[in-house]
Amino acid sequence: MNKAAKILIYTPSDASTYADMLKEKGFTNVHAATTSEEAEANLPETEILMQWKFPLHLLERPEASSVKWVQSLGAGVDDLMRSTSIREDIVITRVVDQFGGPMSEYVFAQLLYVYQDIARSQAAQKERSWQPFLTQLLQGQTIGIAGLGSIGKEVIRKARAFDMQVYGLSYSGKEAHLVDRHFGPNEWHDFVKDLDVLVLILPLTEQTRHAVNRDVLLAMKPSACLVNIGRGSLIAEEELIDVLRSGHLRAAILDVFEQEPLPADNPLWTLPQAYITPHMSGPSTQERLGQYLLANLRRYGKGEPLTGVVDRKAGY
Amino acid sequence: MNKAAKILIYTPSDASTYADMLKEKGFTNVHAATTSEEAEANLPETEILMQWKFPLHLLERPEASSVKWVQSLGAGVDDLMRSTSIREDIVITRVVDQFGGPMSEYVFAQLLYVYQDIARSQAAQKERSWQPFLTQLLQGQTIGIAGLGSIGKEVIRKARAFDMQVYGLSYSGKEAHLVDRHFGPNEWHDFVKDLDVLVLILPLTEQTRHAVNRDVLLAMKPSACLVNIGRGSLIAEEELIDVLRSGHLRAAILDVFEQEPLPADNPLWTLPQAYITPHMSGPSTQERLGQYLLANLRRYGKGEPLTGVVDRKAGY
Repeated sequence: MNKAAKILIYTPSDASTYADMLKEKGFTNVHAATTSEEAEANLPETEILMQWKFPLHLLERPEASSVKWVQSLGAGVDDLMRSTSIREDIVITRVVDQFGGPMSEYVFAQLLYVYQDIARSQAAQKERSWQPFLTQLLQGQTIGIAGLGSIGKEVIRKARAFDMQVYGLSYSGKEAHLVDRHFGPNEWHDFVKDLDVLVLILPLTEQTRHAVNRDVLLAMKPSACLVNIGRGSLIAEEELIDVLRSGHLRAAILDVFEQEPLPADNPLWTLPQAYITPHMSGPSTQERLGQYLLANLRRYGKGEPLTGVVDRKAGY
Repeated sequence: MNKAAKILIYTPSDASTYADMLKEKGFTNVHAATTSEEAEANLPETEILMQWKFPLHLLERPEASSVKWVQSLGAGVDDLMRSTSIREDIVITRVVDQFGGPMSEYVFAQLLYVYQDIARSQAAQKERSWQPFLTQLLQGQTIGIAGLGSIGKEVIRKARAFDMQVYGLSYSGKEAHLVDRHFGPNEWHDFVKDLDVLVLILPLTEQTRHAVNRDVLLAMKPSACLVNIGRGSLIAEEELIDVLRSGHLRAAILDVFEQEPLPADNPLWTLPQAYITPHMSGPSTQERLGQYLLANLRRYGKGEPLTGVVDRKAGY
């Protein structure tokens, strides 16, 4: 690759921002597309496709034969893994090590909001009411983290600073040494039963889809908090709604959903234990993501190993 | 001291709870008082006074001649230091090392509430509105901690886990090695000028009273957050109100005030940048405080050094 290799950047929103960043750094053959039509028009001779929500079926066209590398602009690639349109010889990469900081801040912001009952303090302030109450502490509570990649590790690090006991569940077991107790994929019940907080950060694969079903939810303590910052389909969402309606679980802090945007008629919007945010826990600032893309392009140019190469067999 | 030495426990609320805890552990001569009259009636022959908001003038009476030790039930002893009624030979102790966990959780709960704009997420959920927005991160921000005792150390530890830069101001300078930059009592301006967050945990003494005045507040960045979990009078409150009204400072997170309860007509209740809580950031659960008192009583009984002895000259 030289700096004239054709790069196509596709996102439904800010593709031209990233294209401009690359052009500024001397890449000359950079094209931006935000619609399926633009994507199709720009596809011929594209070598590198940097994309989020690209119309993947286009990759079956003869015009896509020049594509050698697909860089996802996010951490999750379950859509790419489900697609049968991406030739085996195309290298797929995803963004890694960018989300640990922001996503762990989201987790602790939301948990502390619930534990410290800030809603109650806010309401009291509106009424100028001076009524001290005892808040609950994270200190001494047990947090379970499902998914021990770079994001999970950041959640662990902060949980330690809050003097929490830390359990973990992972499929590879590689990072078992980071947690006080480690569980494998067949041990969901044992994993969740003593947790005060369960945080889901697993990638979505055939194995993890609906891993958190009614049985697992009911195995949790009624007072436990569930946090999902991974993928909506890690949870059987209909079953979660039933379980919350029955009064089980203290809080469900949800940033991801089976259907996004979350439809206006979804009961989760109004369930008293549900804390809903619109898939925003792991934001990349444009600047930071641009730097990440540039670094990977440089590695590609020098023939060095790319960062974030996806193992198609593992699915992430 | 033997287990029959007379102990008087005084708090306006739950004195009998602590009295019962001590009796259960074999202390036989334990008395509880919640009013000035009860305090007066129980004072004769008292050797150990465990108290919060005790009517200190009673200690000038001849009946108080038997008192050898006053244990405060809180961390701050500025009321005892101001009093001239406590004989020099009476040992004063305060509660230490009990508040770091709870108070640092309060600090990060409130800061993350502001930084993540959870109020906005909550309002959006009420309207079933799916509008992701970019939150601000603590990561990379500079936090300044005024007061580097056991509570300050816990705030430092958590700030490190959030990858913040940590500045500190203290009067003794003993713990200067814990922070990236340390400032002394004559360096308030230099200390605050680059901070994103200023947390006040200093004891209230003649030196620290109104240390955070209009000049210091105006030296802070307009976007900075102020957090006070120390004592209300560390801040010149009227001047803070003026400064907030002028639009300076992003947030003032206040758990303590010059007058408590905060009067209903105090403008802080309604200023848009003010986050008000009723002196509750450092709660002792009755159980934990009871254990603390028992441990100090055992040390007293064995003639060992007490925990939390107040240096009357330093004022804390």
